[in-house]
Order: sequence, then structure tokens, then C-alpha cells
Amino acid sequence: MADSSTTLADLREIVRRFVDERDWQQFHSPKNLSMSLAIEAAELMEHFQWIDVAESRRIGDDANKLSEVRDEIADVLCYVVALANELDIDLSAAIREKMVKNAAKYPAALSRGHYAPPLGNTKS
Amino acid sequence: MADSSTTLADLREIVRRFVDERDWQQFHSPKNLSMSLAIEAAELMEHFQWIDVAESRRIGDDANKLSEVRDEIADVLCYVVALANELDIDLSAAIREKMVKNAAKYPAALSRGHYAPPLGNTKS
Amino acid sequence: MADSSTTLADLREIVRRFVDERDWQQFHSPKNLSMSLAIEAAELMEHFQWIDVAESRRIGDDANKLSEVRDEIADVLCYVVALANELDIDLSAAIREKMVKNAAKYPAALSRGHYAPPLGNTKS
Amino acid sequence: MADSSTTLADLREIVRRFVDERDWQQFHSPKNLSMSLAIEAAELMEHFQWIDVAESRRIGDDANKLSEVRDEIADVLCYVVALANELDIDLSAAIREKMVKNAAKYPAALSRGHYAPPLGNTKS
Repeated sequence: MADSSTTLADLREIVRRFVDERDWQQFHSPKNLSMSLAIEAAELMEHFQWIDVAESRRIGDDANKLSEVRDEIADVLCYVVALANELDIDLSAAIREKMVKNAAKYPAALSRGHYAPPLGNTKS
Repeated sequence: MADSSTTLADLREIVRRFVDERDWQQFHSPKNLSMSLAIEAAELMEHFQWIDVAESRRIGDDANKLSEVRDEIADVLCYVVALANELDIDLSAAIREKMVKNAAKYPAALSRGHYAPPLGNTKS
Repeated sequence: MADSSTTLADLREIVRRFVDERDWQQFHSPKNLSMSLAIEAAELMEHFQWIDVAESRRIGDDANKLSEVRDEIADVLCYVVALANELDIDLSAAIREKMVKNAAKYPAALSRGHYAPPLGNTKS
Repeated sequence: MADSSTTLADLREIVRRFVDERDWQQFHSPKNLSMSLAIEAAELMEHFQWIDVAESRRIGDDANKLSEVRDEIADVLCYVVALANELDIDLSAAIREKMVKNAAKYPAALSRGHYAPPLGNTKS
């Protein structure tokens, strides 16, 4: 029931079953799902739209607010998983390989405390 | 190494370590991360911007294209996980609870083959 | 050459000619253009992703940064205009009518200094 | 009242007055406004999320749907104008200068009927 005992395959199965039971695969083209993902990401942003960066760090103090944010994050994650199901992408491998690229682009020693890639490293 | 043996806690640890090694937690306010998520979702959409829905289902036929899309999906997932780390949200519980709400909003029997909630069900 | 002497019809003509000369109308379905708009909006956001709210107010102090932001705003506006061309929407009328709805939702007397609609006013 | 007689300066004045009357300038940092723009763009996309490209071209046949889409476009445009007001950007000049760059990147003769820049032209 918790992140330490739930695999990505478990998540995929939860989402797959939900989609199957509603015969929604017909709507789940990668183009449409990429839009859904962006739409849900925007709904998540709405909660942080008018508050300051520092204030956003304290959003967990308001249980109702946090619960709404949690639901939006779940929606985004659902669509990530639905897209992985549709395109048959192993998320675990994808994220590990991307992290290797990120580590090359942002070497830890040269990236501490600033976000832009060090000089000479171009955008991957 | 694959989705069947990687837990969400494993993912969280991968992302946490990457952020820690670069001292990036200072940038990872929920407000900023919600923007990052939306930005990466838009980069993913770019791959589907000018093609048709049907064409997007065949994107896996082009190995290079699929590899780019896979990287963008990994980026989105990384920020979902980074946000969960920041807000101390159990993703597995969040997605399961959201799925219960979704199932109430879109009962399988009334939702087969169309995407709008059945009459009388309002947006949650 | 400036906003005081350029009409919305002038803008529409500039965009229409650019699209016509490239035979791009075939790509400009409302669905695709709505994606383009969101993608350009995300590129604009990128400039503000890691900085604070207060810092973003000083972006004009950096001429290069401002010039980049200006280009992104122009891109967003181009797609707004392209969409209006495609759907034959009078932007001037659309904005005036929406402002009337906004004024009803956020009455000036009750909305000074806070962004949420006053109690009893629902989301339009 | 129509696009042929409304200048961009007119639009800017409409938006400026609305913001002033509510004392909302305090919320209108460029960072926040860039989020608002992306959020409104996503709300516009929602109308096209599950329909096909061809179907989206016929959205004008449904007067109610078109009216909703029109309102969302107005919202996006309002935030473009609010951002221009905040950053003191002449939209007319910005769009004309961006169009010159776009024309260099996508020469008409080489871009007819396809969207990618011709070989050798890099992303600006």
C-alpha cells in the first residue's frame, strides 16, 4: 500500500485495468495523452499560481490544500503511466538512462548550487 | 532494473540522491517544481504537435523518435517524484485514492466508450 | 509600428500572410494550435522557472533576458492570432465580453487585493 | 468594437484598468503571469483534448462550444497583454521583429507544406 512495496508494474496494472474497464484505449493516443498530461500539470500549477516560492514550501501546513495538490499529482502520474502503457516504455529503465544523461550534463562537482549546465555543456 | 522490480521508493531514492549531490533542494520549492513539470510536459507535447492522432499511435515505429519521447516522459516522471519528495507524499497511496474518486466519477458501466462523466456527476 | 497605431486586424493580416506563404494552414487545426499555444507558453515560463517572484519583476534590467522573453511573448501572441484566424473569432469582441464576465465574477469593490472570487461567486 | 478598429493600445488600457481597479498589480509578477498564461492555454486545450484534428476544425459548428473556446482565447490574450503591461513591451514591435526571425528560419520557398526548418537552419 506504500511506495516501498509498490512497483511501477503495479501502478501500470492499476491504470491499465481502469482504462480497459471503460474501453478508453480508443482515446488514449500518445498525442491525446500528451495533452492530458500538460492539462493536469497546469491544474497542479493553479495551486501555486498566486503564492510566493517560500509560501509554496509551507503548503503541507494546510491539510485541505495538500490533499488537493496530492490529487493533482496523482492525476499527472496516472497519465505518465497511461502513456508508458500505450507506448510500451519501461519507466524504470527510461528514468535511469535519463539520469545518466542528466549527470553528464550537470556534473555534481560543477553544478552544486546553480541550475544552469556548466559552460561547454549544451542542452541535451 | 525493470518496472516489475522497481518500487516507487527506489525511484524516489534515485531522484533524492541526484538532487542532494547538487544541492538543488534550494530550487525545489513546490511552486518551481510545478512549473518544471508543466514545462517538461510541453516538451513532450512538442513531439506530437503537428501530427495526427492516428500517426501518434505509430510513433514507436521510429526508434529515434521513440527514444526522444521516452526521455521526455522520464523528465516528467522525475519532477513528479521530486515534488512527492518535497511534499512528503506517498505516490502509491495518492494514486490509489484518486482512482477510487475517478471510479465514482466515471462508473465503468456508464462510461464505456465516452469520456465525459455521466449526467449528474460533477467535476471532482 | 507601435501598439497605439496597430490594430488587431493588422496583426491578423501579418500572421495570415506568413501562414499563407508557407501553405501552413493545413497544419493549423484548432487542436494543433491549442498545443502550440501551450508549448510556447511553457517556453516563456522557462525564463522564470528557477527565480523568485520578486526577481522576476527585475527581469527588464537584463536587456538580453528581456529580449528573449519578448520573443516568447510574441510567439504566444502569434498563435493566439493564428487560432482567431482559423476560428474566425473577433478578438476585440471576445476580450471585451470576457471582461464583462470577469467583472461580474470579481466585483472591484469586493476583490481589491485578493485574487479568489468573493464568496458565492462560482467559477465561470 | 471590432478588430479593425481596436488597437493593441486599446487592449492594454482595458486590461490595465481592470487590474488597477482591483489592486492586482501586486500579484502580477512576470513569474506568476507566465504561470497564468500556461494555465489558461491548458484550459483552452481541454476543449480539444479528446477529439481528432479534423473534428477540431468543425468546432465552430457548435455555437456553445465555440463560445467557450472564445472565452478561453480571450483569457489567454488578457494575460499576454497583462504581461506586456508589466514588462513594458510593445507587442506590435515584438511580433514584427519575431516574424522577421521566423521568416529567416523558415524561408517561404523552402518551407512550403512542411513545418520543420530547412536543413542547416537551427532553432532560434
